[in-house]
Amino acid sequence: MGFDRLIEGIVRMQNPTVVGLDPRLEYVPEYIVEKKIYKHGKTLKAASKAILEFNKGIIDEIHDICPAVKPQAAYYEMYGVEGMKAFYKTVRYAQKKGMFVITDGKRNDIGATMTAYAAAHLGYTDVCGEEIAAFGSDALTVNGYLGTDGISPLIEQCRANDKGIFVLVKTSNKSSGELQDLTLESGKTVYAAMGDMCESWGEQLQGKYGYSGVGAVVGATYPEQLAQMREALPHTFFLVPGYGAQGGGAEGVSKAFDKNGLGAIVNSSRAVMCAYKKEECDERDYAKAARREVIRMKEDIISYLPKIAIE
Amino acid sequence: MGFDRLIEGIVRMQNPTVVGLDPRLEYVPEYIVEKKIYKHGKTLKAASKAILEFNKGIIDEIHDICPAVKPQAAYYEMYGVEGMKAFYKTVRYAQKKGMFVITDGKRNDIGATMTAYAAAHLGYTDVCGEEIAAFGSDALTVNGYLGTDGISPLIEQCRANDKGIFVLVKTSNKSSGELQDLTLESGKTVYAAMGDMCESWGEQLQGKYGYSGVGAVVGATYPEQLAQMREALPHTFFLVPGYGAQGGGAEGVSKAFDKNGLGAIVNSSRAVMCAYKKEECDERDYAKAARREVIRMKEDIISYLPKIAIE
Repeated sequence: MGFDRLIEGIVRMQNPTVVGLDPRLEYVPEYIVEKKIYKHGKTLKAASKAILEFNKGIIDEIHDICPAVKPQAAYYEMYGVEGMKAFYKTVRYAQKKGMFVITDGKRNDIGATMTAYAAAHLGYTDVCGEEIAAFGSDALTVNGYLGTDGISPLIEQCRANDKGIFVLVKTSNKSSGELQDLTLESGKTVYAAMGDMCESWGEQLQGKYGYSGVGAVVGATYPEQLAQMREALPHTFFLVPGYGAQGGGAEGVSKAFDKNGLGAIVNSSRAVMCAYKKEECDERDYAKAARREVIRMKEDIISYLPKIAIE
Repeated sequence: MGFDRLIEGIVRMQNPTVVGLDPRLEYVPEYIVEKKIYKHGKTLKAASKAILEFNKGIIDEIHDICPAVKPQAAYYEMYGVEGMKAFYKTVRYAQKKGMFVITDGKRNDIGATMTAYAAAHLGYTDVCGEEIAAFGSDALTVNGYLGTDGISPLIEQCRANDKGIFVLVKTSNKSSGELQDLTLESGKTVYAAMGDMCESWGEQLQGKYGYSGVGAVVGATYPEQLAQMREALPHTFFLVPGYGAQGGGAEGVSKAFDKNGLGAIVNSSRAVMCAYKKEECDERDYAKAARREVIRMKEDIISYLPKIAIE
């Protein structure tokens, strides 16, 4: 229940990081892109097949040292139906390799419609009695702007299928404060009010290690807010984007963790996917370069943590 | 620019309504579902093909009397890759019949990722120099919780391709107030602050008829807030869900309109898709029943409007 499976993976690998699979075509080595275009022309199909091969190569190299991947739905949707096929196959492949898959979709809607999103990403779709997993991730990022009835259907699916959600609280982007930092009459900020809702929703999904299945997205680029939220939301597991390329440092993100080095997972996307470009190594070595970057990131982050242990 | 094309369609047809295409399989007449299952088994493919046939039947019957359709992404995602194919074909088919297509996706993310969503739904995806429309709708619903840098990439695509967005302001669901109705230090509510951001974002996308390409979603279930927002946001076009099945009435939604009967489009999904069930007519008559419901809804709504005219 909750994020127990994810936490166990983090402890086993001593690695509280997740690799974001946000594969723009320009991140994919040319030899892969050229091969697919030779076969399928300059089409969405060629692009999607290139992305899938790229993802599989990275998953092959990191699945034994990194507990989770986070495919970003937008980068598959932009390649249309073929892109969604690459997304589906990426999720399946990573799970087959034992990884925990967080779909970054930031989905949100009213209750009836969230039931459909919950089925799509965390549960099963009924087709005249057959129950079929449409995309079948392990967790989904969601936006809580619509309140409880947009979250309840997700909680039901999480409970039934041992899945989790991450609700946007304080996002990593520059303009996140325009709405999220506004102060309410109560003296709280909008993001803190959203954080409180996460704690409250999570009461229905408590896990074994003190964290519920309702996590929160809190950006690495705002370390003060990370520290404040860590204290205010003791049962809420954090997904922390913004490390590396977006400017968040390891010392800052350490504030997202509790005294056991648990309570958060830090995402890096571009720095891992494009490690081969930064290293200026042979592009055919892209997956091994990604592995080297995962190890570098993990060591950077754990150097600020006391330990990573289940008490 | 802005929602000019949509407004012209509304005036031409004297119909300020949009049909939501949220086709759960249980809404589709049995004869269609059975035919597809006979051919493809109880699969996501069978479900998706049934949905597409159902949608096309409705579009065929309403495209001459209704300016727009609003497919809800969740109900296609729940049928996986095959569902996304049905979504794509629904968008294309409605556009071919001259309809304005609003993708209800409530997408949101940081700037770089919103660029991908903007390409996916409102623009073009670059594949090594080829520019391809992945889904190619006319407008997209979005969630503004992340602030300006999550909206800017959409505005760029809207300007380049004559498209629009609708930002969630005050949603139609029961718990929408949990966050949206909280009062800020300034005395404004969170939803009013979001509404102000819509007016401000829209300055970059002003259309010919006084409305920008940055619209707002304001639920029919909250007529007071509709009236308040109509006054506060004079350049913001409203998408009004919640009429009919969710409980919003025509008198209430009339408050979303300006003195010329413009400024809003009212959505109905279930009541149109399931009109044949309510009528208890032959299920093979489902599309004609949908047409009758569109006419009934339109007459109900315009009976409270002074006129529908471009000044």
